[in-house]
Amino acid sequence: MSRPLILVTNDDGITSPGIRALIEAASELGTPFVVAPDSPQSGQGHAITISKPIRLKEVDIFEGITAYECSGTPADCVKLAKNVLLKNKQIDLCVSGINHGSNASINIIYSGTMSAAMEASIEGIRSIGFSLDSFSYKVDMSAGKHYAKKIMESVLQSDVTESKLLNVNFPNLPLSEIKGIKVCKQGKGSWEEDFLENKDPRERPYYWLAGNFKIDAKDPNSDLMALQNGYVSVVPSQHDLTHYAVLEEMKYLENI
Amino acid sequence: MSRPLILVTNDDGITSPGIRALIEAASELGTPFVVAPDSPQSGQGHAITISKPIRLKEVDIFEGITAYECSGTPADCVKLAKNVLLKNKQIDLCVSGINHGSNASINIIYSGTMSAAMEASIEGIRSIGFSLDSFSYKVDMSAGKHYAKKIMESVLQSDVTESKLLNVNFPNLPLSEIKGIKVCKQGKGSWEEDFLENKDPRERPYYWLAGNFKIDAKDPNSDLMALQNGYVSVVPSQHDLTHYAVLEEMKYLENI
Repeated sequence: MSRPLILVTNDDGITSPGIRALIEAASELGTPFVVAPDSPQSGQGHAITISKPIRLKEVDIFEGITAYECSGTPADCVKLAKNVLLKNKQIDLCVSGINHGSNASINIIYSGTMSAAMEASIEGIRSIGFSLDSFSYKVDMSAGKHYAKKIMESVLQSDVTESKLLNVNFPNLPLSEIKGIKVCKQGKGSWEEDFLENKDPRERPYYWLAGNFKIDAKDPNSDLMALQNGYVSVVPSQHDLTHYAVLEEMKYLENI
Repeated sequence: MSRPLILVTNDDGITSPGIRALIEAASELGTPFVVAPDSPQSGQGHAITISKPIRLKEVDIFEGITAYECSGTPADCVKLAKNVLLKNKQIDLCVSGINHGSNASINIIYSGTMSAAMEASIEGIRSIGFSLDSFSYKVDMSAGKHYAKKIMESVLQSDVTESKLLNVNFPNLPLSEIKGIKVCKQGKGSWEEDFLENKDPRERPYYWLAGNFKIDAKDPNSDLMALQNGYVSVVPSQHDLTHYAVLEEMKYLENI
């Protein structure tokens, strides 16, 4: 059997330590093919580039591995990989990350890391987004790399076809202190925004997004609680946003 | 009772015909307060601006209505309205659009229009994204405006508290040919991408996203079919992306 083809991307940019750790883990299981943004894209959500052209450039920064840097968003990277660079090839798995910062809870919505994984899943490719609960670029990625490899290996061997998208978050703990993996649901949390307001050198006002994440419900089966309790959280995710629970109730709108 | 405060935003930019139609409809029901991007933001998904400052400027382009143009994304507009401009006020409803182009089916994921509405819903504000199934800026908005007003009015009067987010799409038909409103689920569709590949004046290659939307399943209860059959589609939506149907099955990952 030929080695699985693993598309690797991220949103922190191709030079971030997180993608290097993920490429190393993927190399032990298959053939990585890297297409990642040429600059950080955090907070890009599911942005795609439609009003201007996108550039692609092959780069030689990961020994023996084909890699391209892309001027677009994480979702653009996946679209270009599938439809241009790997046009007639089967991509066995797409992995995104390892993101510097948690994408648990509602952060899946804002996350470029998860948008790349979601884009792959929309295109029918199994995909996993990995994130580590620390913004530091000096953080130890070895526990994340260990679990990323285990989860990728298991997904590559699994025959579950219904689940195309996993949101995986690692607690910022050494391997010996991580208690294991929890498969859980998206936790309820939100951001308390507090814009920094200031004036620029020309005395014109500006606003800069700041804020703190707060946990809105301590559900023991949520990714937020799994992380807080020292587990790797895995949320099987999808892109049907229909609120089925209220569908019948909302039918009153058909008679207005 | 005081008139309801209605936050109005969009992703096509503050000068687009669509937002003008929506402001006119909102004016008949309450007090509109406009914060919209200063340039088109289509395809922005749920992007937020975190790595640079955002500018806000009050503009006088809608007679008698307070309006700001914002250098950020649609989601940024909502965050700034709620947390800075309307900090201690109750926003009764947030409406986004009317978008030039359908946001039915999977397009909710890529849509700046829907990301603004979703951001409001995350912040606990009832919200509705409106889109018209035509990219033309010359299109007749009167049927859309008629239905937008009816739906806003009904939501303002309703006591359904569980549903915070509606994805509303109008067929491109005159009012007399629209058959009514259908409350439905997100249809299954996807984009067949076909990047335009070319060279710039300096002979460097570039790629430009193109493609056609295709319907993957003709479910009669989907927004795609409602639109095709001449109805206004309303999909009650939410932001919990957990794939509950596979949650138990995926627990095998806890034992790898």
